[in-house]
Amino acid sequence: MKIAIVIFDKFTDVDLFLMWDLLNRVRVENWEVKILGEKESHISVTGISIKTHGRIEEANDANAVLFVSGQGTREKMRDENWLKKFALNPEKQFVGSICSGSLILAALGLLEGITATTYPTSKTALESFGVETIEKPFVAHGKVATAGGCLAQQYLIGWVIENLADKSWSDLILKSIQPVGEGLFFDDAENLSRLYTPVIKAQTV
Amino acid sequence: MKIAIVIFDKFTDVDLFLMWDLLNRVRVENWEVKILGEKESHISVTGISIKTHGRIEEANDANAVLFVSGQGTREKMRDENWLKKFALNPEKQFVGSICSGSLILAALGLLEGITATTYPTSKTALESFGVETIEKPFVAHGKVATAGGCLAQQYLIGWVIENLADKSWSDLILKSIQPVGEGLFFDDAENLSRLYTPVIKAQTV
Repeated sequence: MKIAIVIFDKFTDVDLFLMWDLLNRVRVENWEVKILGEKESHISVTGISIKTHGRIEEANDANAVLFVSGQGTREKMRDENWLKKFALNPEKQFVGSICSGSLILAALGLLEGITATTYPTSKTALESFGVETIEKPFVAHGKVATAGGCLAQQYLIGWVIENLADKSWSDLILKSIQPVGEGLFFDDAENLSRLYTPVIKAQTV
Repeated sequence: MKIAIVIFDKFTDVDLFLMWDLLNRVRVENWEVKILGEKESHISVTGISIKTHGRIEEANDANAVLFVSGQGTREKMRDENWLKKFALNPEKQFVGSICSGSLILAALGLLEGITATTYPTSKTALESFGVETIEKPFVAHGKVATAGGCLAQQYLIGWVIENLADKSWSDLILKSIQPVGEGLFFDDAENLSRLYTPVIKAQTV
């Protein structure tokens, strides 16, 4: 399975790294997660430089394509040269966004005729594409999903992992980040070790 | 205010980036957040390379010092050359950890005689330092705090921001990452804009 996370300059740090970290906890054969961009590296909104593992065109062959959020979405949603590199097929590929990443899904025409969610400060911009917004953390229609609010990545990534691996992986991985005493317990230690077996590290990029 | 986040090789990605992102949403004068390490850059457990903003010795002058987690803590908790570079003062500095970062607090002698929390898979190692572990997301004694489970960073960072900025900042920042419809709402857009004013970006590193 190939999962592509698409970034750009001025992305929101936690909206890349929460999904990246969760997706990298899956330990199944040929599970590959890549950060894609149009450059060798991109700079987050706080100034962190992150190397990409490949170019955005690779997203067109991925099983799942996820768009991060950030101030950069305002520029990317109007960048025709960038947008035209994507040829995503929502019949075959899972496509999702967190927060203002929904603006890119809209610009790619992937939200036509369906409802979506986004970050509160991006609601007006999303509606300007003619998309009806709804105040929910996660909205999925077939293989296209939007999530709003950084921690709603849990719903989005749970959906991807459940569909591309299975529910036992998504349940365990979402459990693994909960606060101790509030969803995660000391007695879970043995189960959690499934996620940290270094043996299968080579499968991640 | 100077906040230091201490990293090392094989750190857990989200345990750096959730706190980094939240701390960078504070918009008060002279608020400075730095990622410190013993090298120019460190590699996360998933292979992400992150440049540091300074060396670990700078932590000794910070108002708050936060230790991230990850497989690397097992090596660092025994690395005498590394540990001896810290001269932290828990009477003056706020010192905290997420997940297995507690092992470093223990190795530095900062958990002597107090209870602490940690990640389930680090409980035995923490207890080997003679520390009594309790199954809670966040345990603070004076200016020393431990948090367990990635998302318990919310408690840890809320505590730091409330103490070094004020409660209105911690409340707004913790709200800003909640899922839409579950703690964050479309009507919050105007309040949230306080966190995204680019004017004060220069205060972050």
